[in-house]
Amino acid sequence: MTKLTFPFKVDIDFATGHVTAPAKVLTRRLSDLQGLFMDSAAYEQMLSRENPVLYDVYEIQVPEEAGHLASCTTVIYPGKVGKEYFFTKGHFHTIEETAEIYTCLRGEGYLLMMTRDGRSRAIKMTPGVSAYIPPYWAHRTLNCGGEPFVFYGVWPADAGHDYAAILDKGFKQRVMEVDGKPAVTE
Amino acid sequence: MTKLTFPFKVDIDFATGHVTAPAKVLTRRLSDLQGLFMDSAAYEQMLSRENPVLYDVYEIQVPEEAGHLASCTTVIYPGKVGKEYFFTKGHFHTIEETAEIYTCLRGEGYLLMMTRDGRSRAIKMTPGVSAYIPPYWAHRTLNCGGEPFVFYGVWPADAGHDYAAILDKGFKQRVMEVDGKPAVTE
Ligand SMILES: [Mn+2]
Ligand SMILES: [Mn+2]
Repeated sequence: MTKLTFPFKVDIDFATGHVTAPAKVLTRRLSDLQGLFMDSAAYEQMLSRENPVLYDVYEIQVPEEAGHLASCTTVIYPGKVGKEYFFTKGHFHTIEETAEIYTCLRGEGYLLMMTRDGRSRAIKMTPGVSAYIPPYWAHRTLNCGGEPFVFYGVWPADAGHDYAAILDKGFKQRVMEVDGKPAVTE
Repeated sequence: MTKLTFPFKVDIDFATGHVTAPAKVLTRRLSDLQGLFMDSAAYEQMLSRENPVLYDVYEIQVPEEAGHLASCTTVIYPGKVGKEYFFTKGHFHTIEETAEIYTCLRGEGYLLMMTRDGRSRAIKMTPGVSAYIPPYWAHRTLNCGGEPFVFYGVWPADAGHDYAAILDKGFKQRVMEVDGKPAVTE
């Protein structure tokens, strides 16, 4: 039985993704995504020159217990490693039978999803698109546009994050720039 | 264990609250809120002349099972019954230890919350405000502005809706127009 907790509010800036306190920002830089981009030579070369922020997550924290809902905005900045657009690490949920909803607030990107048994799906994200990530589907997002890609996500607060399978085996799909346009490849 | 379901997307119009298929619209008219407004004479008089739509809910339906997340937009139209602003029925969740998040997309309103043991809270909603309704708190929303009040909500899909306690005992707080401005009263 959950202890009584109290209502609160934050202010979300839909244009920048910024969220007021008590939200907390988590910043991921190029160096945090070692081994995940296809072109490792391009990755090492870029990292030798600079260590850019790939994305910021503004997390609205609540007790990590069943019944609560965690939420965040994510801001993925525009850019590529070689021909591959900046993306998030991607994860399964530790409690795999938990869903998540992502709603695009700004910019242009993709939501990539896959199951452990090899199914995959991609959803193009533009402002107003609200995508349903059902239980069991790992998820990664990427910015394939020229401005920040901002989306809002909600998930069961006890779901947990399992990054290990993605670090180990990668994501089934990639989105690369081909002839100046994003192309989803398997 | 949840059966495998597949990703999908809808398009949400943040200005109007409309959501594309497979979302479904639920329309609540004045006649659906019998017995809930303070001024019953004003209610009966209004209903004898017209039966306006008080609010529309565009629900993005998923399996009503643990782990899934239901979501909707709600559009509450501007108007009053006597001095009391148009509101939603309000409910507890049947599974009381489940939260909900409401994020305002347009207009101006209030989110009223109360517990069964008599606590109450009110949060003013304007675009970008994201309010956390923790487990155990009943919730009602109302439009205290001059244009549609639109918000987006997410909740655990198995939470269920318990309207009975509100129909029986009402909501602890009300928001009335006093000297041309909204005032929260207990
Ligand atoms: Mn997740
Ligand atoms: Mn609810």
